[in-house]
Amino acid sequence: MANEHLTNLLNQVASHEITTEQAFKQLNQAGFIDLDYAKVDTDRQRRTGYSEVIYGEGKTTAQIIGIIQVMLTTNTNILVTRVSPKKAQKISRVYPKMVYLKKSRIMLWQQNIPEQTNNTIAIVTAGTSDLKIAEEAAVTAEAFGNRVSRIYDVGVAGIHRLFAELDAIRSATVVVVVAGMEGALASVIGGLVDKPVIAVPTSVGYGASFNGLSALLTMLNSCASGITVVNIDNGFGAGYSASQINHLVESEQ
Amino acid sequence: MANEHLTNLLNQVASHEITTEQAFKQLNQAGFIDLDYAKVDTDRQRRTGYSEVIYGEGKTTAQIIGIIQVMLTTNTNILVTRVSPKKAQKISRVYPKMVYLKKSRIMLWQQNIPEQTNNTIAIVTAGTSDLKIAEEAAVTAEAFGNRVSRIYDVGVAGIHRLFAELDAIRSATVVVVVAGMEGALASVIGGLVDKPVIAVPTSVGYGASFNGLSALLTMLNSCASGITVVNIDNGFGAGYSASQINHLVESEQ
Amino acid sequence: MANEHLTNLLNQVASHEITTEQAFKQLNQAGFIDLDYAKVDTDRQRRTGYSEVIYGEGKTTAQIIGIIQVMLTTNTNILVTRVSPKKAQKISRVYPKMVYLKKSRIMLWQQNIPEQTNNTIAIVTAGTSDLKIAEEAAVTAEAFGNRVSRIYDVGVAGIHRLFAELDAIRSATVVVVVAGMEGALASVIGGLVDKPVIAVPTSVGYGASFNGLSALLTMLNSCASGITVVNIDNGFGAGYSASQINHLVESEQ
Amino acid sequence: MANEHLTNLLNQVASHEITTEQAFKQLNQAGFIDLDYAKVDTDRQRRTGYSEVIYGEGKTTAQIIGIIQVMLTTNTNILVTRVSPKKAQKISRVYPKMVYLKKSRIMLWQQNIPEQTNNTIAIVTAGTSDLKIAEEAAVTAEAFGNRVSRIYDVGVAGIHRLFAELDAIRSATVVVVVAGMEGALASVIGGLVDKPVIAVPTSVGYGASFNGLSALLTMLNSCASGITVVNIDNGFGAGYSASQINHLVESEQ
Amino acid sequence: MANEHLTNLLNQVASHEITTEQAFKQLNQAGFIDLDYAKVDTDRQRRTGYSEVIYGEGKTTAQIIGIIQVMLTTNTNILVTRVSPKKAQKISRVYPKMVYLKKSRIMLWQQNIPEQTNNTIAIVTAGTSDLKIAEEAAVTAEAFGNRVSRIYDVGVAGIHRLFAELDAIRSATVVVVVAGMEGALASVIGGLVDKPVIAVPTSVGYGASFNGLSALLTMLNSCASGITVVNIDNGFGAGYSASQINHLVESEQ
Amino acid sequence: MANEHLTNLLNQVASHEITTEQAFKQLNQAGFIDLDYAKVDTDRQRRTGYSEVIYGEGKTTAQIIGIIQVMLTTNTNILVTRVSPKKAQKISRVYPKMVYLKKSRIMLWQQNIPEQTNNTIAIVTAGTSDLKIAEEAAVTAEAFGNRVSRIYDVGVAGIHRLFAELDAIRSATVVVVVAGMEGALASVIGGLVDKPVIAVPTSVGYGASFNGLSALLTMLNSCASGITVVNIDNGFGAGYSASQINHLVESEQ
Amino acid sequence: MANEHLTNLLNQVASHEITTEQAFKQLNQAGFIDLDYAKVDTDRQRRTGYSEVIYGEGKTTAQIIGIIQVMLTTNTNILVTRVSPKKAQKISRVYPKMVYLKKSRIMLWQQNIPEQTNNTIAIVTAGTSDLKIAEEAAVTAEAFGNRVSRIYDVGVAGIHRLFAELDAIRSATVVVVVAGMEGALASVIGGLVDKPVIAVPTSVGYGASFNGLSALLTMLNSCASGITVVNIDNGFGAGYSASQINHLVESEQ
Amino acid sequence: MANEHLTNLLNQVASHEITTEQAFKQLNQAGFIDLDYAKVDTDRQRRTGYSEVIYGEGKTTAQIIGIIQVMLTTNTNILVTRVSPKKAQKISRVYPKMVYLKKSRIMLWQQNIPEQTNNTIAIVTAGTSDLKIAEEAAVTAEAFGNRVSRIYDVGVAGIHRLFAELDAIRSATVVVVVAGMEGALASVIGGLVDKPVIAVPTSVGYGASFNGLSALLTMLNSCASGITVVNIDNGFGAGYSASQINHLVESEQ
Repeated sequence: MANEHLTNLLNQVASHEITTEQAFKQLNQAGFIDLDYAKVDTDRQRRTGYSEVIYGEGKTTAQIIGIIQVMLTTNTNILVTRVSPKKAQKISRVYPKMVYLKKSRIMLWQQNIPEQTNNTIAIVTAGTSDLKIAEEAAVTAEAFGNRVSRIYDVGVAGIHRLFAELDAIRSATVVVVVAGMEGALASVIGGLVDKPVIAVPTSVGYGASFNGLSALLTMLNSCASGITVVNIDNGFGAGYSASQINHLVESEQ
Repeated sequence: MANEHLTNLLNQVASHEITTEQAFKQLNQAGFIDLDYAKVDTDRQRRTGYSEVIYGEGKTTAQIIGIIQVMLTTNTNILVTRVSPKKAQKISRVYPKMVYLKKSRIMLWQQNIPEQTNNTIAIVTAGTSDLKIAEEAAVTAEAFGNRVSRIYDVGVAGIHRLFAELDAIRSATVVVVVAGMEGALASVIGGLVDKPVIAVPTSVGYGASFNGLSALLTMLNSCASGITVVNIDNGFGAGYSASQINHLVESEQ
Repeated sequence: MANEHLTNLLNQVASHEITTEQAFKQLNQAGFIDLDYAKVDTDRQRRTGYSEVIYGEGKTTAQIIGIIQVMLTTNTNILVTRVSPKKAQKISRVYPKMVYLKKSRIMLWQQNIPEQTNNTIAIVTAGTSDLKIAEEAAVTAEAFGNRVSRIYDVGVAGIHRLFAELDAIRSATVVVVVAGMEGALASVIGGLVDKPVIAVPTSVGYGASFNGLSALLTMLNSCASGITVVNIDNGFGAGYSASQINHLVESEQ
Repeated sequence: MANEHLTNLLNQVASHEITTEQAFKQLNQAGFIDLDYAKVDTDRQRRTGYSEVIYGEGKTTAQIIGIIQVMLTTNTNILVTRVSPKKAQKISRVYPKMVYLKKSRIMLWQQNIPEQTNNTIAIVTAGTSDLKIAEEAAVTAEAFGNRVSRIYDVGVAGIHRLFAELDAIRSATVVVVVAGMEGALASVIGGLVDKPVIAVPTSVGYGASFNGLSALLTMLNSCASGITVVNIDNGFGAGYSASQINHLVESEQ
Repeated sequence: MANEHLTNLLNQVASHEITTEQAFKQLNQAGFIDLDYAKVDTDRQRRTGYSEVIYGEGKTTAQIIGIIQVMLTTNTNILVTRVSPKKAQKISRVYPKMVYLKKSRIMLWQQNIPEQTNNTIAIVTAGTSDLKIAEEAAVTAEAFGNRVSRIYDVGVAGIHRLFAELDAIRSATVVVVVAGMEGALASVIGGLVDKPVIAVPTSVGYGASFNGLSALLTMLNSCASGITVVNIDNGFGAGYSASQINHLVESEQ
Repeated sequence: MANEHLTNLLNQVASHEITTEQAFKQLNQAGFIDLDYAKVDTDRQRRTGYSEVIYGEGKTTAQIIGIIQVMLTTNTNILVTRVSPKKAQKISRVYPKMVYLKKSRIMLWQQNIPEQTNNTIAIVTAGTSDLKIAEEAAVTAEAFGNRVSRIYDVGVAGIHRLFAELDAIRSATVVVVVAGMEGALASVIGGLVDKPVIAVPTSVGYGASFNGLSALLTMLNSCASGITVVNIDNGFGAGYSASQINHLVESEQ
Repeated sequence: MANEHLTNLLNQVASHEITTEQAFKQLNQAGFIDLDYAKVDTDRQRRTGYSEVIYGEGKTTAQIIGIIQVMLTTNTNILVTRVSPKKAQKISRVYPKMVYLKKSRIMLWQQNIPEQTNNTIAIVTAGTSDLKIAEEAAVTAEAFGNRVSRIYDVGVAGIHRLFAELDAIRSATVVVVVAGMEGALASVIGGLVDKPVIAVPTSVGYGASFNGLSALLTMLNSCASGITVVNIDNGFGAGYSASQINHLVESEQ
Repeated sequence: MANEHLTNLLNQVASHEITTEQAFKQLNQAGFIDLDYAKVDTDRQRRTGYSEVIYGEGKTTAQIIGIIQVMLTTNTNILVTRVSPKKAQKISRVYPKMVYLKKSRIMLWQQNIPEQTNNTIAIVTAGTSDLKIAEEAAVTAEAFGNRVSRIYDVGVAGIHRLFAELDAIRSATVVVVVAGMEGALASVIGGLVDKPVIAVPTSVGYGASFNGLSALLTMLNSCASGITVVNIDNGFGAGYSASQINHLVESEQ
């Protein structure tokens, strides 16, 4: 579908010639809305339980704005990850309701605030430098309505810090462990809790950390059971998977 | 602790000089029982919800037999992974109750049959060659009491085979996707279901598959959300994590 | 050959002392024209069916301009790939007829517009971020006279978008699939069409995508048959090979 | 579907209780026939123009025999790749019509001999050690009805050998170049012909050839245009893709 | 120097024509004794404090025997590492005093028993499968006169096993940590002791452990300070370095 | 613990409402002091003999200042590594007593000057470009009270420079060898001294040095015994481990 | 050319129907002789100064024998590298004059003994385990008429052994350095001699030597000038290049 | 030696208190002159035939100037490689006689113009983008007195350009081949000439060229004999080794 058609349609909505519902129906004939550069997946919520999330990196500001414009017609919440401060500024000029959470580099517009879970997701980091990725996980989980408990800087170099927080970690439904350098924290926690652990290797480190490869391999080879792994620096993915599990448990209560 | 001490103790149990409970208490003073070559973790069930599993590779038959001997005193189920047919034969001569499941290379002795879950774990493979690893996942999950649904050879080269099984996959609580070569199946399933997907890359393939590296990278970089990954050929790990999630959901019902 | 000699000759052409044909003959004694820093291959069209294409990266603006100057004497179309906006601006000041296509980073001067094929090449991308490379393929194919059909953002995370476009894809003679991250789209399309598929891995992604290595390996290990692969981000190469096949088929009609 | 059901059905066919057509219809309800360990894709010929090919590596002899048994009901030609001499012997005891082509490690049963093309596919190797992979490509192409021209051992260390064969290479519709070690032959041929070149890196070499990685990278980075690449040692894939292109051209004549 | 000359000389020693001291002086003119295939470093003890150790891998049995023959003239202790049981059997037929320690694959002949240190070296392993490498370290350290404390199978999957042994570990002068898979144990111990930790990655594991690469990277990137690393499976090197430090401390008491 | 609480407490200290000791006790209930983004390990000196060191890279200036603020309450020396000149300037505006040592990129505040050892640590570099990392090692060692001897630019391309400094190197208790490119210096020194050698690969070099990987592998595979290795560019780690050994020896005198 | 034709021709030679010269002319029309599986390069001596060498690995015994048969018609010396003892036995049954040099795995038939050079090539190894590759270099050089000086086991762990042999090394025209593990010897020698050094990394080592990668990288990154490198374990290539240089110098005398 | 002492000495020379010869003798007691950050190797010319060359990368401008200052006392020619334009400008302000050759990034001060050889070194490049590295090789060789023949842009994509220059290449004593991307040119030339070929892989390319790794592997695995390889982008090393060989040949004439 040409952008032109979309623009016309949205103009008609603006001038109340047609309703939002009518516009949406026209656009969404195959479960997606077609821009030149993107096919926005309007069927995802039905299929996977969550609406589409915009991965901001590698997209121009204009493209992100265009996709938001389309998603607004679907009445879903809008979550954009990996937004640089510069892009965020431009986007919020167009959509002042898009909130920028700097630490996590996420932009968010909750058209419908989700109900919060009773169960908790614990987000644990090994060091202070892992905070940015941990926040991406935490904000993602919160955007999907999860209660989140942040436990930062409890790496194994001072393991008593971890033990002091063990009760908090154990009381969560799912544990997300965020660690760079050697990533040993995931194994240690995996041996101490009876809940699923999702490990996020980060690119924190230097030299033979090879931009997160070291932590990734550590986590994949963990001798502790019950650990699964996501991509290096993929805080979003960990938050998303943790949310899936947490909601699954919550829904059964 | 010397093996000698252990042997004495077990002999005393055999001759009814002391009870099993007394022996166990004596042995298990720090939450583990010490052999020369292994410290059997008798506290794991309390800590992580599951008793220790014996990783068979890299251990001699004598060592495996020794560890089984100790675990028998703890009245837990015994599960040994990665057992070659040759080792299995020797072990079952000593412990005829240890059952060998050839396709999964697992040995199993269920002292207490666990109650079966109502929820299902789906184990899906891309090809016929991934079967060995899929069985490791399936048998592991079954050993921990999970209902398992096996859906094999639905790789993306003939994607209609996958769609024919989609209802079965969607009705599971957790989906384990086992695939080698390019591992694309995980992404496709991740885009079609609203449940946690655990992806297992296998070493099936040749050339630039680099013994599973290709499938591993594919799965880590999946554009679909909700996918977490375990080590190459780690069927056990996937089965274990899936079981954790499935039980968590089950327990809330 | 010294640049000086070339300059003299071109000056003589400018002042009508000698004709273009005479100049070209003098220059082109061995099937190429020699600059200090480049030997322009004037024989390529005869040998491979296509005139030389200038790879713009790693060449200075002065070098590109010099090579264009020589190629103009051969009356062929001029195509320069990987031109930054900055370089493009400088070049078009010297040759205003060189058109810069920003999305594809290609500069083009069609001295003779090629006849357009009846058959179509389909260029398919997994995501919006793959657009730059897809455009390089598309513009290259168009420059060589091919009809091109662009089908963007139909990645496997929302596979219904792909199925909605399947007829368009199936009606093409050759399909170029452009995908980064895990690159699974190539395998899925390979299993659905009966035409040659040329896969282009892109460097889109982060972490364990290792700048396109993940997508490259995925595509090389595809379980679907009929897929061949070009270098990471090599849109030009895919467009060129697709054009070769398309013309081969067209010429037989 | 259980194997049991399949066996019953095939027995009924054998006893003429039901016809082959009836059996096939019963089995093939979703475009594939389900064995426990494999879902044979009976719809592939319609979808991709070729019937399914059995990849022999990683499958047990029993599994291969089972799949052949099913495919026989579909009246298609049967092609099994990567069959070891030992497996081949066992299979041909069950199906004496399965011919084993040792050099290419392929087993073949042509139920319907395909018509041969007028156009030719040239299979070119750099050295004698690349012969095994070249034969896999050649036999695959021949099985699909292509005329094949074998030009072996014309590597760049003695480039006059290549020039002596250049006419034969240039007269082909598609050129498959098979080379290990440094794989330079693909680039040299790419610069000399005006037809699509499919490059097959082989694992021939030692040391820093890293089992074909060196040749693979060479071919992906070729400075000549018109070259696409398949996986290391993937003679089948190259033969298949070449056949696709050759038939496409042939069909237009 | 020809082997012949050496043989003559040794024969002369055997027949008491010349003394051992005279033979040694003749041989050892440049601080080494020359065989055709080896130059035995007779000066090493003076230079580095330890006599040469024979690395058994990659040497033929005949070569090892030849080097032992020469070293016997120097009156030093003889230590051969990486000796397969088969080679060991052949060597001990020639030199019955060479003791073979199977678990560590070391052959040893202590011509002069070294005095034992008061200080202790702790050798700690993560798992049972790391035992072989740990024994190489332990036997090496003992051969150089160090008191050794073996603490095996205290990996982080059951970290209470480590805490139960912490006093023993802390009382050592140097700690050698031997671990495969993800190698997290080194970091945990590094954060708990105030002594130098030498980490030995082992090739124990599978899949993405890449034969010890994972553990190696973990150890190099440790967030705990005071950890240095040796090559994968280099138990000897760790035992040797630990011995150097232990003796340095001992000598100052 | 919230930052707010910490600020209140520190304000109370400033206004003499409570003493430093009282504040510290309140803060340090579990062996660490909790900031939002960091848990400062106040128990490390007791456990490992050294107080915590702040790794400056990947932390914001504000975070570093916050951690310093907390550590000041513990009366320990403060050492921050990897501080850029820009960050250093900002930090020294807040804490003028923090001294910035530009060559080593270390900031230092010695609240209590440690007693200097009699024994020496030798820091040896292969080239001039390794100086930055060597200084990180040297300054770290000096901060912990060690006498340090700097011997720079004695790489194997001119090995007589090394021999001229051999006495100085041999008289040290521990030798730190810092080398990039091929890193051969570590092996040469390892064969010439009888003291522990700690090798630091640096990222100096280009092309196939792969940012220090070449030197790292060289050092791990050294044929000389007694060499242990730290991460690429980890001058701090080498200085720290050398200090541990040096103090251990010193304390026994 | 079909093998059949070749066989006829050779039979005619055997029966004196035609002369060897006539047969050769008929065969060698394009500078090579065509077998089905190989095109023997009969023009190489004219072009590169050396006749073709047969690389034995990856060729069947029958193929090697066939190539020898052809080369015998060209009256050149025959050199086959990488011949296993088993293959050698079979070949020498057919051609008893083919001598097998076991240490170097080379088969040789000097139809014309080349004149020996006055200048010397020095072949130097770091250890005893590098001997096999060193002998491949040495025998190759000798086969081409070079005087060779073997200096084995002078690795940097005992550098005085190297200095004792320095005069012999310095008197050579070219120096070949063969080393595995960390490969530091090449740099040390490169800094001590004023002649070209050709470095051969060997796959000797374990763990992080990654089958010779470590030594390869070391040699490529050498800080000493005048060092060039060949493939891992490529003793033949080093011997060949050294011979080229040595003959070039010799010819000018 | 402190810089202060050096400064004093040089001041004394400037004021004619002592002669240059006296200063040099004082400084050069061990075959090198000691600065704090560098030990200038004044003995290298005697040892290796060439004076020390300054590798400019990774050294500060001040360090380079300091080393030049010292080398001036030795009356040798001064060659600095890898100098950025910015550094060059600063250096030439201090030493106006240092000439900057921009294309090669080399600074040069020929205090004594070397005699030029009669023999020629051919420097051949595959493409225009390889020019920078080729010039580094060419200028290095010229600085050492070699006659150099530049043959640029004759890559295998248009191999007739190479054949047109073959006589020029064949008449050289040594051939340096500089190529990026797939680096196939080295093998082609190696098969056509009877002189030593030194191959220089360049980092030219993108995607799977992995910054020169592809070309490096190609060259190491060349099927042509007589090729040795230097580090990626190491134009200097190739020029230096070529010069060594060329002078060796020249000196024998």
